[in-house]
Amino acid sequence: MSGIEYLRKLLTGELPPSGMVQLLGLKLVEVSEGRAVFAIQPDEHHYNGLGIAHGGLAATLLDSALGCAINSMMPAGKTFTTLEMKVNYVRPIRGERGELRCEANVIHAGGRVATAEGRIIDEDGKLYAHGTATCILFRP
Amino acid sequence: MSGIEYLRKLLTGELPPSGMVQLLGLKLVEVSEGRAVFAIQPDEHHYNGLGIAHGGLAATLLDSALGCAINSMMPAGKTFTTLEMKVNYVRPIRGERGELRCEANVIHAGGRVATAEGRIIDEDGKLYAHGTATCILFRP
Amino acid sequence: MSGIEYLRKLLTGELPPSGMVQLLGLKLVEVSEGRAVFAIQPDEHHYNGLGIAHGGLAATLLDSALGCAINSMMPAGKTFTTLEMKVNYVRPIRGERGELRCEANVIHAGGRVATAEGRIIDEDGKLYAHGTATCILFRP
Amino acid sequence: MSGIEYLRKLLTGELPPSGMVQLLGLKLVEVSEGRAVFAIQPDEHHYNGLGIAHGGLAATLLDSALGCAINSMMPAGKTFTTLEMKVNYVRPIRGERGELRCEANVIHAGGRVATAEGRIIDEDGKLYAHGTATCILFRP
Repeated sequence: MSGIEYLRKLLTGELPPSGMVQLLGLKLVEVSEGRAVFAIQPDEHHYNGLGIAHGGLAATLLDSALGCAINSMMPAGKTFTTLEMKVNYVRPIRGERGELRCEANVIHAGGRVATAEGRIIDEDGKLYAHGTATCILFRP
Repeated sequence: MSGIEYLRKLLTGELPPSGMVQLLGLKLVEVSEGRAVFAIQPDEHHYNGLGIAHGGLAATLLDSALGCAINSMMPAGKTFTTLEMKVNYVRPIRGERGELRCEANVIHAGGRVATAEGRIIDEDGKLYAHGTATCILFRP
Repeated sequence: MSGIEYLRKLLTGELPPSGMVQLLGLKLVEVSEGRAVFAIQPDEHHYNGLGIAHGGLAATLLDSALGCAINSMMPAGKTFTTLEMKVNYVRPIRGERGELRCEANVIHAGGRVATAEGRIIDEDGKLYAHGTATCILFRP
Repeated sequence: MSGIEYLRKLLTGELPPSGMVQLLGLKLVEVSEGRAVFAIQPDEHHYNGLGIAHGGLAATLLDSALGCAINSMMPAGKTFTTLEMKVNYVRPIRGERGELRCEANVIHAGGRVATAEGRIIDEDGKLYAHGTATCILFRP
């Protein structure tokens, strides 16, 4: 199964979401070649001691979306692993703004390495966090 | 209350852990000036679709520990916010290795900016992930 | 003088380029609000021991362009300093491809913090490196 | 020739420094397994328009030292390439503080990936910048 076939089965619910995605309440809402979008309605379960979302929420959203964007480029029999991920936090995330989207797009997909960038925005397009990831590609 | 006083109340349970820390099952296990350690027993609730821990688990652990390490240096009336965080994933995380620790230490604490680094290791000191964070400091 | 007024004087040559920009042969070739572009013709003076450009060349290009993109948003009397910068190297840089451009654009410009992203490309739009920077803004 | 044999020849001058290292005046001053140190006397040729060293100087120093630290672990016939590098700037660099050292140490050296961290300090151990790099390893 190619990466995008796998992701389409996640999108339709034919395959169940993973444990962490369920635990945090993330939803895969869009997939195409080189692109993936997750959505989240933040609530107090995602908060830190300051009454705003823990930095781990944006990091998990970005890691999910960046990984799926890169996975969408993988032919059958090729896999990848994330080597590193970086998040910039530009505004505090709270539940009142409604559902947020994390949109990720591949920047570079080579034979051995791929990179992607993503942004977490609300319905008005206001930016909350952004980040990048670097993956290596291989045949298991 | 200074940062370290606040963290000591979290450590003893006098203050409750935040929503996200509870949701993922993280435990603050050590605090001193410039240093904080969290522990986690990974299980299938933290997994991604490949049967290993989602990258968001290591990111959340690191963000927690790095933030608390920097918070431990804050005098009363001063606060901080994380501007960016970076994680390197060096080995897959699974439940079988038992409890993991995320040890974070401040690298630089200036008047306006602080940085810290952290490592996620198992009981044998084997490394699973490492990362850094950059925070700005201010008086609310 | 605002940031963009300063950069326009650099662009026209009314102000001389800084020491490092001269030493490496970088040229500021475009400035607008939230955007800056530098160009470079790589040669053996930029090479490492492997016969390709040293990673420091792409890093210096990106740091220059990212900093100027953010500077282009600074009103008179406000200044900034770069807290951190990250570079992804996606293809080796050599002199044969001709002049390269490093295009940087602001992602977020808030009251205290700004971020920008940049890409190093050749005349055909082929990507060689990309990166981001985080700056704090203040009044001296 | 293994990585460390190559680096020892650079250290003794048996092999000439690369173009970029000469252009910036960097000196390799120490090599051992998993560790490399470069030195630099900053001067106005490294400056930006603000009268302090351009961010590219610290980035080039770190990239050099991090790459050599990883190279020191490579057996004959194995090589590596830097995928990404990150720099944190914590204090401005000027010539008056005398020679600076950039000390880099390997964090993780696996079969396919290696990471390293480095710090730029003056003679008193005062920190100016720090960073990390991620490399992939392969047989050409």
